[in-house]
Amino acid sequence: MTTIKQQADYATLINVFTVEPGHAEELTALLHAATEEVMRHQPGFRSANIHLSIDRTRVVNYAQWDSAEAYQAMLASPATQPHMSQAAALAVSFDPHLYTVESVHERP
Amino acid sequence: MTTIKQQADYATLINVFTVEPGHAEELTALLHAATEEVMRHQPGFRSANIHLSIDRTRVVNYAQWDSAEAYQAMLASPATQPHMSQAAALAVSFDPHLYTVESVHERP
Repeated sequence: MTTIKQQADYATLINVFTVEPGHAEELTALLHAATEEVMRHQPGFRSANIHLSIDRTRVVNYAQWDSAEAYQAMLASPATQPHMSQAAALAVSFDPHLYTVESVHERP
Repeated sequence: MTTIKQQADYATLINVFTVEPGHAEELTALLHAATEEVMRHQPGFRSANIHLSIDRTRVVNYAQWDSAEAYQAMLASPATQPHMSQAAALAVSFDPHLYTVESVHERP
């Protein structure tokens, strides 16, 4: 279980992969395996949540890192680069950005 | 606080707004107000989380609804349409999709 908190001190990565529907499940499985085997063992990793769109045109990784620096260090690590290249090769495009959580709203 | 659960029975909406950096904070504030005043009072709303990218080029709403049908009913409601039009007008583009949570990964 992952929790989202307002104005938290962690860094949120949202990476939106655009995919051909025929590759969506393969990309989802690849991100699952890479996260379990490699990403979650990197320093500063908190959580990752792999989402598949109902229309099979998007796969989203919603992840939390201790800091932007921890995320950047992961990107630069030789351990993670083969996995990121494999994911990129399955996608039409991908769009990673780091975010802050500005507000959390719940039902009344 | 919002929690993300694997293979949950709710529907996840991820809406990625692409913005000119000069409009990012205004769009964030507009989504905050519309969610507090209107969206969270719609039937089937669970939570919404407004994210602003550090580079100010994206604003993401990560929301949970009881079902895809509840989300579709909200879209069709006259109460919500003015707010969605205002948000759309501030953005370069937006890309809403409904998702399932395929997997949740935590640090070891």
